[in-house]
Amino acid sequence: MFEFGEDKPKEECGVFGIYAPNQEVARLTYYGLYALQHRGQESAGIAVSDGHNIALHKGMGLVSEVFSDQDVVSLKGKMAIGHVRYSTTGSSLLANAQPLVVHYQKGMMALAHNGNLTNALELREELGKNGAVFQTTIDSEVIINLVTRYRRDSLEDALVKTMMDLRGGYALVILAEDRLFGIRDPHGVRPLCIGKMGDRYCLASESCALDTIGAEFVRDVEPGEIVVIDEEGLHSRPGLAKVEHAFCAFEYIYFARPDSTIDQLNVSESRRRMGIELARECPIEADLVMAVPDSGTASALGYATALGIPFGEGLIKNRYVGRTFIQPTQAMREVGVRLKLNANTSVLKDKRVVMIDDSIVRGTTSSKLVEMVKNAGAKEVHFLISSPPVAYPCFYGIDTAEREKLIANQFDVEGIREFVGADSLHYISEEGLLRALGTTTVCLACFNGTYPIPISSLKQGKNNFETFN
Amino acid sequence: MFEFGEDKPKEECGVFGIYAPNQEVARLTYYGLYALQHRGQESAGIAVSDGHNIALHKGMGLVSEVFSDQDVVSLKGKMAIGHVRYSTTGSSLLANAQPLVVHYQKGMMALAHNGNLTNALELREELGKNGAVFQTTIDSEVIINLVTRYRRDSLEDALVKTMMDLRGGYALVILAEDRLFGIRDPHGVRPLCIGKMGDRYCLASESCALDTIGAEFVRDVEPGEIVVIDEEGLHSRPGLAKVEHAFCAFEYIYFARPDSTIDQLNVSESRRRMGIELARECPIEADLVMAVPDSGTASALGYATALGIPFGEGLIKNRYVGRTFIQPTQAMREVGVRLKLNANTSVLKDKRVVMIDDSIVRGTTSSKLVEMVKNAGAKEVHFLISSPPVAYPCFYGIDTAEREKLIANQFDVEGIREFVGADSLHYISEEGLLRALGTTTVCLACFNGTYPIPISSLKQGKNNFETFN
Amino acid sequence: MFEFGEDKPKEECGVFGIYAPNQEVARLTYYGLYALQHRGQESAGIAVSDGHNIALHKGMGLVSEVFSDQDVVSLKGKMAIGHVRYSTTGSSLLANAQPLVVHYQKGMMALAHNGNLTNALELREELGKNGAVFQTTIDSEVIINLVTRYRRDSLEDALVKTMMDLRGGYALVILAEDRLFGIRDPHGVRPLCIGKMGDRYCLASESCALDTIGAEFVRDVEPGEIVVIDEEGLHSRPGLAKVEHAFCAFEYIYFARPDSTIDQLNVSESRRRMGIELARECPIEADLVMAVPDSGTASALGYATALGIPFGEGLIKNRYVGRTFIQPTQAMREVGVRLKLNANTSVLKDKRVVMIDDSIVRGTTSSKLVEMVKNAGAKEVHFLISSPPVAYPCFYGIDTAEREKLIANQFDVEGIREFVGADSLHYISEEGLLRALGTTTVCLACFNGTYPIPISSLKQGKNNFETFN
Amino acid sequence: MFEFGEDKPKEECGVFGIYAPNQEVARLTYYGLYALQHRGQESAGIAVSDGHNIALHKGMGLVSEVFSDQDVVSLKGKMAIGHVRYSTTGSSLLANAQPLVVHYQKGMMALAHNGNLTNALELREELGKNGAVFQTTIDSEVIINLVTRYRRDSLEDALVKTMMDLRGGYALVILAEDRLFGIRDPHGVRPLCIGKMGDRYCLASESCALDTIGAEFVRDVEPGEIVVIDEEGLHSRPGLAKVEHAFCAFEYIYFARPDSTIDQLNVSESRRRMGIELARECPIEADLVMAVPDSGTASALGYATALGIPFGEGLIKNRYVGRTFIQPTQAMREVGVRLKLNANTSVLKDKRVVMIDDSIVRGTTSSKLVEMVKNAGAKEVHFLISSPPVAYPCFYGIDTAEREKLIANQFDVEGIREFVGADSLHYISEEGLLRALGTTTVCLACFNGTYPIPISSLKQGKNNFETFN
Repeated sequence: MFEFGEDKPKEECGVFGIYAPNQEVARLTYYGLYALQHRGQESAGIAVSDGHNIALHKGMGLVSEVFSDQDVVSLKGKMAIGHVRYSTTGSSLLANAQPLVVHYQKGMMALAHNGNLTNALELREELGKNGAVFQTTIDSEVIINLVTRYRRDSLEDALVKTMMDLRGGYALVILAEDRLFGIRDPHGVRPLCIGKMGDRYCLASESCALDTIGAEFVRDVEPGEIVVIDEEGLHSRPGLAKVEHAFCAFEYIYFARPDSTIDQLNVSESRRRMGIELARECPIEADLVMAVPDSGTASALGYATALGIPFGEGLIKNRYVGRTFIQPTQAMREVGVRLKLNANTSVLKDKRVVMIDDSIVRGTTSSKLVEMVKNAGAKEVHFLISSPPVAYPCFYGIDTAEREKLIANQFDVEGIREFVGADSLHYISEEGLLRALGTTTVCLACFNGTYPIPISSLKQGKNNFETFN
Repeated sequence: MFEFGEDKPKEECGVFGIYAPNQEVARLTYYGLYALQHRGQESAGIAVSDGHNIALHKGMGLVSEVFSDQDVVSLKGKMAIGHVRYSTTGSSLLANAQPLVVHYQKGMMALAHNGNLTNALELREELGKNGAVFQTTIDSEVIINLVTRYRRDSLEDALVKTMMDLRGGYALVILAEDRLFGIRDPHGVRPLCIGKMGDRYCLASESCALDTIGAEFVRDVEPGEIVVIDEEGLHSRPGLAKVEHAFCAFEYIYFARPDSTIDQLNVSESRRRMGIELARECPIEADLVMAVPDSGTASALGYATALGIPFGEGLIKNRYVGRTFIQPTQAMREVGVRLKLNANTSVLKDKRVVMIDDSIVRGTTSSKLVEMVKNAGAKEVHFLISSPPVAYPCFYGIDTAEREKLIANQFDVEGIREFVGADSLHYISEEGLLRALGTTTVCLACFNGTYPIPISSLKQGKNNFETFN
Repeated sequence: MFEFGEDKPKEECGVFGIYAPNQEVARLTYYGLYALQHRGQESAGIAVSDGHNIALHKGMGLVSEVFSDQDVVSLKGKMAIGHVRYSTTGSSLLANAQPLVVHYQKGMMALAHNGNLTNALELREELGKNGAVFQTTIDSEVIINLVTRYRRDSLEDALVKTMMDLRGGYALVILAEDRLFGIRDPHGVRPLCIGKMGDRYCLASESCALDTIGAEFVRDVEPGEIVVIDEEGLHSRPGLAKVEHAFCAFEYIYFARPDSTIDQLNVSESRRRMGIELARECPIEADLVMAVPDSGTASALGYATALGIPFGEGLIKNRYVGRTFIQPTQAMREVGVRLKLNANTSVLKDKRVVMIDDSIVRGTTSSKLVEMVKNAGAKEVHFLISSPPVAYPCFYGIDTAEREKLIANQFDVEGIREFVGADSLHYISEEGLLRALGTTTVCLACFNGTYPIPISSLKQGKNNFETFN
Repeated sequence: MFEFGEDKPKEECGVFGIYAPNQEVARLTYYGLYALQHRGQESAGIAVSDGHNIALHKGMGLVSEVFSDQDVVSLKGKMAIGHVRYSTTGSSLLANAQPLVVHYQKGMMALAHNGNLTNALELREELGKNGAVFQTTIDSEVIINLVTRYRRDSLEDALVKTMMDLRGGYALVILAEDRLFGIRDPHGVRPLCIGKMGDRYCLASESCALDTIGAEFVRDVEPGEIVVIDEEGLHSRPGLAKVEHAFCAFEYIYFARPDSTIDQLNVSESRRRMGIELARECPIEADLVMAVPDSGTASALGYATALGIPFGEGLIKNRYVGRTFIQPTQAMREVGVRLKLNANTSVLKDKRVVMIDDSIVRGTTSSKLVEMVKNAGAKEVHFLISSPPVAYPCFYGIDTAEREKLIANQFDVEGIREFVGADSLHYISEEGLLRALGTTTVCLACFNGTYPIPISSLKQGKNNFETFN
C-alpha cells in the first residue's frame, strides 16, 4: 500500500518528550521524531526548555529536512518536546506546525498534541468572548489558552480543569516551568507511552521511538492520567477518571509501526492474528498468498501460515518513491500506480491468488491493483481486508476521506467486489478483529458509527476556522 | 554610506494599506512595499481581506524574494495591508514578521505596525493577568490583544481605547471587517500619509510609495488621528488629541527616501538645506566637496553650491553589494569597507577635500573612509556631518547602537575628530538642523536626550521578551 | 538491508531510451528513470532530440527532485535518453552527471552509460595525444570522443570501431542524428533490454521500467549487439561478436529490482532459489526465518518454505529514512542503525532464528543487526548469506568497498562469524549460486577474482582523474 | 540608468587572476570578482591550482550568492583565476559559466575569457573536422582546444599559435602548469591590467579590483602581449604585434566602474570630460542639470560645472531594486520604471532641466523618464547623451540590442527626440568623445560601423550554437 498514496486514512500527529538535564535533549528528540515519522510527514518541530526560556525550531517537511545539525546543536536545554504532523490539504501551513510556544503570565509554555477535539469550536467561541485571539487553526492553541486562563491555580490544577473542558481524543506533551507533562484523554483514544534512560524519563506516541533512542519501555500513560517528569523522576497525578477505554483500532490495523507495542499488544503480532482470523473466517483454496506492501504483509503471512499456502511477493514496491512526482497525462494514467507498485509476473502467472490489504477507503487504488495482478497472469484474485468496511468518518484525530467518498457508503460488499474487480472479497468481521486484538475496549466508530465521545459541534464537518491561506 | 552596513541607525519598518475592490490590491501593495524597501529588508508580508476572511503571505527577505507572482495572484480580496521589517540581531524570526493576522470573537483582523511602544512590557503583563498568551515578541501582538479586549464596543471605540493605553511611537494600518484603518500616535513620531487612486484611497509610510503605484498624494495622517477607508471613501475619526508634534528628525536626515515628502517638506530638499546650513556654520576653503554615498549626496551638493566649490565623486560605491559576503580574514581586514566603497584617486589627488556624511554612530567606518580618502592623495580631509552627535538611544522605533558604543558617548568632538583621523570635524548644530527643517516640533531625543514620550519601563534597555530562538 | 546504507556494493547507473515521435518522450523517460531510481540516486538527467538539436536537463538528486513538470514539458523532441547515477564519494559532481551532450562535426550527440571501462586511462591518453580535452572524469566522455573521431565513416561503423577500442562493462544508449542506439558490451556485463509501445521502441536497464511506462518486453539486447531504433522500427546491427557471457551475478543477488527479468530469469525468483539452495546447503533447526529487509526477503521466503519454518518480520524498517540525517554523537552511536531497522521483540523473543541477508561487505552493520536481534531475545542467530564472500573489487561498474576493507579479506568464515557475533554463519557456495541462477556464464569476479575482462590499467585502483573538486 | 534594466548595452564578462603561494588565493579572487560584479551578474566561478590539480567552483548568480565561506576555504592552491558572466537571454546556462577547466595530455588547464571571437564558427568547424567535441557554446572552449592541439610545442608557443588563429576581442587569464597567464588581443579591445601585492602579481579586468584587494596598480597588459606570472615574478612574452589599438569606447562611457583607470585614463574623469564636451557642443540655458543615475552622474556634474548651472537629484533611484520583480499588469504598466526611478518633484518643479544619460539603445525607457520628469513639473527637458547614437551591433564582447531594435536605426536625431518627447536632444559628437578620451585609437564601431577587426563569419548574426537548453 502507498505510504505516500492518497487512498488511506491518515494519522494526524506523533509526539515525543524528554527530561534529561546534561544530555542533548534536542538530538534525542530528533531521533525520537525520526522513528515516529510515519505518523506525520508535513511538518516537524522541537521546543527545548532550560526551565525558564523555551527555544523553538520548526518547519515544513520531514524531520531530516527540517533540522540541520546546527539547528539541533543550537537548541540547548534540559528538557524538550517534539512533534510531527501530517499534511491535510488546505491547512498545510507553517503557522499550524507544532509545538506551539507561548509567553504567558507565569513565563513560557510549549505544547504538542496528537488527536482531535470535538468541542474546539465551542471552546474557541467561549475564549473569544473573553478577548482571546487565535493565530492558528489548531486545537493546541485552544488547549494552551485554557491552561493559561486556569493558571491562577497550580499548574496541575490548571491542567485538570483544562481536561474537564476538553472533549475528544488527545495525547499531549507539555513543557512548563521545569517540568515535562504527558496527558492522555480519559478514553485513551491516542497512544502515549513512557520510557526510561538511566534515571531519566521520556514520552512517545509509540514504543518504536523508545527503542530507537535506546530507552527502556516502562508503561503506557493511562487514559485520563497526567504524568509529570522532573528532577525527582516520574510522578502520576490523578487527571480525569478513566472511562470506557476506546483506543483507536486503526492504530493496530494500519497506522502504528509494526515494531511498536501498545497496551501490551505488539502491532505486528496483532496483524498476524488478523491474518489468522481471516483464515478462519474465509479460508480460500489458493496457490499464493500475497500482500499489498508494506502494511498488509504481516496479515498475509499470518493467513498463509495458518492455511499452509505459500507466501510470495506478488507486488513489488518502488523503494525510491518520492513524496511528489510529475503527474502522468491522461494518456499515461495507468503509470501513476505503477510508479509505486509493480506486479511481479513470474510469481503471479497462472496462480490463484489471495491478496491481503489492511483497508479500502475509496477503492480506486484497489481496483488498479487487482487489475495489475490479473494482467500479470493471476487466474483468480481473492481480496481479503484486515479491517471491517470503513463507513464513518473519524472525529478523534484520523483523516479518512469524506463520508460520501467512502466506497463502503456507496456499495455493499458485493458491489465493492464488483468495483474492484476481484473474484471474491472478504472483510474481517468486527468479532474477528476484536478476537485478534484480544480486547473489546477499542474504538470501532469508523466501522460501525458508534462514537464513544460526543461529537455534536462538528456535525457540519470540517472545522470552519480553516481560513488562513 | 552603507545601506547594508553595520554602522548606521536602522529604521524598523514600513507599512502600506489600500482599499480598492475590483483591483489587484495585493499587487499594488507589493509595489508599495517595493518602494518602501529601504525601511526594512528583513521580512515582508501582505494580508488581504475580502471583508470577512483574511489571507496572509509573509517571509524572510526582500519583497522581491518573498513574493512570487503566484503568491500575489492567490491573495485575492478588496483591501490589503503590507509590511516590511528591518533585521535586528537576535529576533530575526519569521514568527515576528508582519502583518499579524488573528481570529477573534468578531471575525478576523490584520495589523501592521511601524514604531515602538515604550510601555509594551506593562501592557503585556496586564494582559497576561487576564490569561492572554503571546506567540511573538512584537508590539503588534500587544496592540491587537488590546483591540480585541475592547471590542465589545464598536471597533472605532476599541481603537480609541487602545490608543489611550499605548505609549510610544506608532503608525498602524489595520484591516478589520470591511474597513481599512490608519492610525498615527499623538506625537506623530512615525510618518504615515494618504494617497488617492481614482475614488479609492491608500496609506503609506512615505509618499514615494504613492508615486510608485501612481497614486496622488492627499495629505499626511495627523498625529493622534484615526483614518477610516471604506466603500464610502475616506473619513477621519477623532482619535487622541494631537500633542506636541515630535516627528523623528532622523527620517529627514537619513531614513526616508529623498523623493518622499513628509509634513510638507521634501526629504532631498531638507538635506540640501542641511548642506547649506553646514556651509553657513562651517565654510571651508577646499578644492572638492564630496559625499559619503548615497545618503550624504544631497547635503554635499547643497554645501558645494552654497560655497561655489566643485562637487565630485570621491568615493565610488559598488552597486552590486549583496546583503551578505564572505568575511575577510584578519590579514585582509581592510578589504571589508573597500568591497562597498572605493576612493577615486584621480578625483582626490592633491585636493583639499570636504567629505559630508549624514551621521556617525560608532565611528569605525568613518575612520576607514577618511584613511582611504587620504591614501588616495587628498591633502586635507574635512569631515562634516549633517546631524548633531548621536548620543542617546531611540525608544520610538529606531535601532541605534547601544549607548556605550555610540562614539559621541566616548569622546568629545575633538576626540572623535582624532578617532576618525580627519583634519577637522564639524557636526551641524541643533539650531542649524531645525533651520534646515523649518520647524521646531521634531524629536531630537537621540541628540539631546530630551524624550518627548515617557520611557520608564524600558530603562533596563532591551525588551526582555526576546527569548524565542 | 539499508538501501541508503554505507555497507553495500553500489550500482553505478541506470539508463533509458525511447524513440516515439508525437509522444511526450521526456515524460516517458522520466517515468522510466523513476522505476530505475534504485540504480542511482546521486544525479539524474534527460536529453531530448528533435533529430537535429538536443536539449538537456540534469541535476543532483532523485529524479523527482531534479525535474519539475515545467522541465519535462520544455524538453520537446521525438526521442530521448535518460540516466540516473549513484553517488560515489568525491566525484559527486554535476559535471559528471549524464547524459553527456556534445556538438561535433556532424551535429549533436547524446550518450548515457552504465558500466565501467577498464582501459579508460589508456584511451584518454591516446586521445589526449591528438589534442582532445576532457571536462569530466567519466568514461562516457572517452566513448563520445572515440565515436566522433571515427565519424568520417558512417555512424554505425564509428560505433563498431569504438566498441573495438573499449574494454570493460558497458550498456549504452545514444541519441545521434535521427536515431536511438542501444549497445551492450560483448560480455554482456550490464543489463539492457528492449520494450515496445504500439509500434515504437524503447530501451531500459531493467524490465521494471518497461512495465512502469506500460511497454511490452521484447528481448534483452544481446552482448556485443548494436540496436538501432528509428522511424522504421527496430534493427539489429552486428557489433562485436558475443564472447563468453559474463553477466554480473550481483544484479540478481542485490541490485536489480525483484520485479525485473534479465536474461529470462526473474530477479525475485532467482533470489527465492538462492534461499532454496541455502536450505539445501545449510538446513538449520530453527523456530523462525527472517530477512534483513528488503533485499533478503525473497531468499528468506525461499529458505523458510523449503524447510517448513515460519517466516516472520524480525527486523522492521523505518519507511521514512531520508537520505541524510543528523549523525548521532559518540554517546548515541547505537542510534544510527536503529534509525533504519528495529528488532521486533515480540517476534524474536526466545526464538532460534535464521537471519538471511544478500551479502556482507565490511561487516559493521551485520554485527549490529545480530546484536540487536539477540538483545530482542533471540536464543540463537544463524546468519545465512545469499552470495559467496565478496573478496575482490569490481572493475565493471560496481562500487564495492576498497579491497582492504572487505571483511572477507581480513578473516576466514569462522573469523567473520566471530566478528558479526552470530551462532553460525554460512555463505552460499558458488555452485549453489550458479544452480540458483541456472547458468554458468555469469561474472563472479568479486567472489573468486577471476576477471573475465582484462583490467591491467586499473591495477593502482581508482581512476586517477578524480581531481575535479 | 538601470543597472538591472533591459535597455542598455551589456558587458559580457570580467576576469581576475592571482599567483600567490601561501596566501588564500581563492578568497582574494572572490573579492576581486566582487569588485568586478558590474561586468556580469549571471554566473561566477573560481578555479584554483596547486600547480598540478585544478579545483573549480562555479554557479549561477552573484558572486555573493555562488560562494559560501566553505566553498572558498575548500579551494586551496597557489594560484587562481575567476570569472563573472553577464546573462544574455537564452544561453544563461551553468554549463556556459566560466572558468573552463580541462584535462589534457599535459595535465590540467583553466581559462577565463572576456570578449568575443569573430571567427569562432570557422575555428569550431576546423577543430570538429579533427574530431573535437564541444560541450558548451562559449568561445573559451574553442580557445582551449586550440591551445591543447598546439601543445606539442612549449606552452608559450602554443599560446602564440592560438593567438594567431583567433580573431576578435579577448582578454584571457589562464592557469596552466605552475604559471598564470594574461593575454590581451592585438587590438586591445577588452581591458586587462596588472597589480602587485608584496612580491606577488595579479591580473584584473579593471583596476578597481586591484584597489579592493589592496594591490598596487602596475600597468595595463599591452595589446597582443602575453604576460606570465610565476614563482620568478612577472615576465612579458612577445605575443602578437600590437596593431592599431582599438579599445572599446563604451568601457569609458558606461561599462567600467568610475573608480577604474584604463590606459592611463580614469573612467569617472573621462565621463566628467564628456560632460564638458557636451557643454561645449550644446550649452543650454537651464535651471537644473540632472543625471539619469547612476552612470550619467559624472557627465552631468561636468556639464553643470562647465556652465555654472546647479546640479540636482531630479531622479531618485530605489537602492533596493532586486534583480527580479513581479511584472506589473497592463493596467499598471507605468509602475515598471517607477519601481527603479522616481522623479523628485520638489527639485524639478517649474525648472528648465538638462537631463544627461550615457546612451540610448531602444529609447523606451528614455521616453518614460522624460515623461516622468515633465509630469513632476519640469518646464523644459533637454536630453543630452554622452555617447554618439548607437547604430551598429558590437561583435567584440558587448551585447547591444539587435540592430533593427536600435532606435538610431529607426529615426534620425529629430525623430528620436520626438519619440522620447524631449524639448531638445543632443548626442555628443565622435570628435567630442575622442577629445574627452584624449585619444583616437578607440573602437567606435557601434557608432559608425567601422569595424577594426573583420567579422565575416558572424554576418548572420547570432552564434548558431546556442542550442543547448
